[in-house]
Amino acid sequence: MRIDPALPLYLGIDGGGTRCRARLTDAQGHILGEGVGGPANIRLGPAVAWAGILAATDAALAAAGLDRSALPRLRAGFGLAGIVAPADSDPLLTTVPVGFGAIAVASDAHTACLGAAGGADGAILIAGTGSQGYAIIQGRGHAIGGYGLTLSDQGSGAWIGREAVRMALLAHDGLTPASPLTAAVLTRLDAGPGRGPVAVVDWSAKATPGDYGALAPLVLDLAGQGDGVAAAILRQAARDLAAMVARLCALGAPGVSLMGGLAGPLRPWLPESAQAALVAPRGDALDGALRLARPLPAC
Amino acid sequence: MRIDPALPLYLGIDGGGTRCRARLTDAQGHILGEGVGGPANIRLGPAVAWAGILAATDAALAAAGLDRSALPRLRAGFGLAGIVAPADSDPLLTTVPVGFGAIAVASDAHTACLGAAGGADGAILIAGTGSQGYAIIQGRGHAIGGYGLTLSDQGSGAWIGREAVRMALLAHDGLTPASPLTAAVLTRLDAGPGRGPVAVVDWSAKATPGDYGALAPLVLDLAGQGDGVAAAILRQAARDLAAMVARLCALGAPGVSLMGGLAGPLRPWLPESAQAALVAPRGDALDGALRLARPLPAC
Repeated sequence: MRIDPALPLYLGIDGGGTRCRARLTDAQGHILGEGVGGPANIRLGPAVAWAGILAATDAALAAAGLDRSALPRLRAGFGLAGIVAPADSDPLLTTVPVGFGAIAVASDAHTACLGAAGGADGAILIAGTGSQGYAIIQGRGHAIGGYGLTLSDQGSGAWIGREAVRMALLAHDGLTPASPLTAAVLTRLDAGPGRGPVAVVDWSAKATPGDYGALAPLVLDLAGQGDGVAAAILRQAARDLAAMVARLCALGAPGVSLMGGLAGPLRPWLPESAQAALVAPRGDALDGALRLARPLPAC
Repeated sequence: MRIDPALPLYLGIDGGGTRCRARLTDAQGHILGEGVGGPANIRLGPAVAWAGILAATDAALAAAGLDRSALPRLRAGFGLAGIVAPADSDPLLTTVPVGFGAIAVASDAHTACLGAAGGADGAILIAGTGSQGYAIIQGRGHAIGGYGLTLSDQGSGAWIGREAVRMALLAHDGLTPASPLTAAVLTRLDAGPGRGPVAVVDWSAKATPGDYGALAPLVLDLAGQGDGVAAAILRQAARDLAAMVARLCALGAPGVSLMGGLAGPLRPWLPESAQAALVAPRGDALDGALRLARPLPAC
């Protein structure tokens, strides 16, 4: 494919905490190349973020038979994890290491929502290790939740896993009934009969949200086998997610795209009203990042 | 008062995370002197713990007109914060820096319970920054809860404060109703109108259980003024504490002594059945530590 050197190119970036993806298109939206780089969460610092973004960009350019000499023609949209306030992108934009044509930066939730709603009013609800709702109504973004496991992230994989550990400790102390789930959690955390909850306390001192989230499949499995404790945890998670769906609709979203690793398994647990509000996403986060780049001025 | 140099002396130690207290008595239980030293939580390491214990001991000896030459006559009981398993006292007992006559070590919960129950079967429920229940039944200790704020400590000051922050964020996002409490929490954490919850997230990244617990008086105040969100938080805290009271009684405790900074303010929120199980403590944690020392063999 011949790429006219006189025409602008568009670059979409989806930068997360474990990797960064890039997609390069022409002005008509035809995909010219894609690439992957290292993490680009802005909380890791601008140097790390730029390394991830440029690695993904170089790979996407190479896939299109191009190199960095094309950068001045690139209008780039970056959706980056860790952006909460607009000023969070300042360290990145004051240390641009190469000559992009133009750059627009938003949170990864904003670009994911732009992509899912295809540029129209719409909303997403992410249920992965963490949880967050995001709506774009008349061009304006509204985030709900996603403040981290200590205070928020209800309905997420990490929340489900932490509840499982909490219920296991309550059952160990005889404060609530034991179940196959509470026994399995204690065994998994090496706190079986005889050892007591000391092992759980030691484990929790270093446990990350990802470590808690890794227990969510166990809860899902046992809830499917009729475990009452597991089912109660999932019912609460589903109630919390349903409340977020209702709020996103109240903000004006005509529908909500449920995303993330828990979207599939938790969907059947949602009340009917929440399920009725769910819509399939029209595009992915890279489509959204490309939409962010589209209105940028010509270079 | 003349102290017979042929008779044994008894030393009780209550070592916490902020200070260590000591009480010296004769064989009849007459108090000869008391003293205070620095922190002696075993998690701070044996060197720190010994420094706190010896400073408190020196002060108690000096108050009795004695010095370290009396140490070989001392039968000492240490109740120390941070002891969860018996082996936790090993680093302390293998680094004894001076010649005590005899030493027995237990958790601070065990000595507090020994003191409150006067050496008989009984139980305590601590509701301070954290929460923990402890029963001694036929000489054997049973701990429930107290595994830290992330997974446990229900009904504590830190739990109440964290719930207040959580409800403030939910209200900010329009997921639950706002109230004077949710507004006051956002103002206090510098997340008032315009700033959004970013300030809360920044604050929470460094917040200790003590920081959360510092919000509990605000919840108590506003609940007293009829704030529905504050009252709901306290009702849940009281339900959780009542469940612990019921469990301690089921273990065989004839009564439960409610202790800690939240004991007074939360008592009226407890259901009638839990209030009926409460008994006044017969002695304090130093009395309990002295009881721990009493059966020690003669030097």
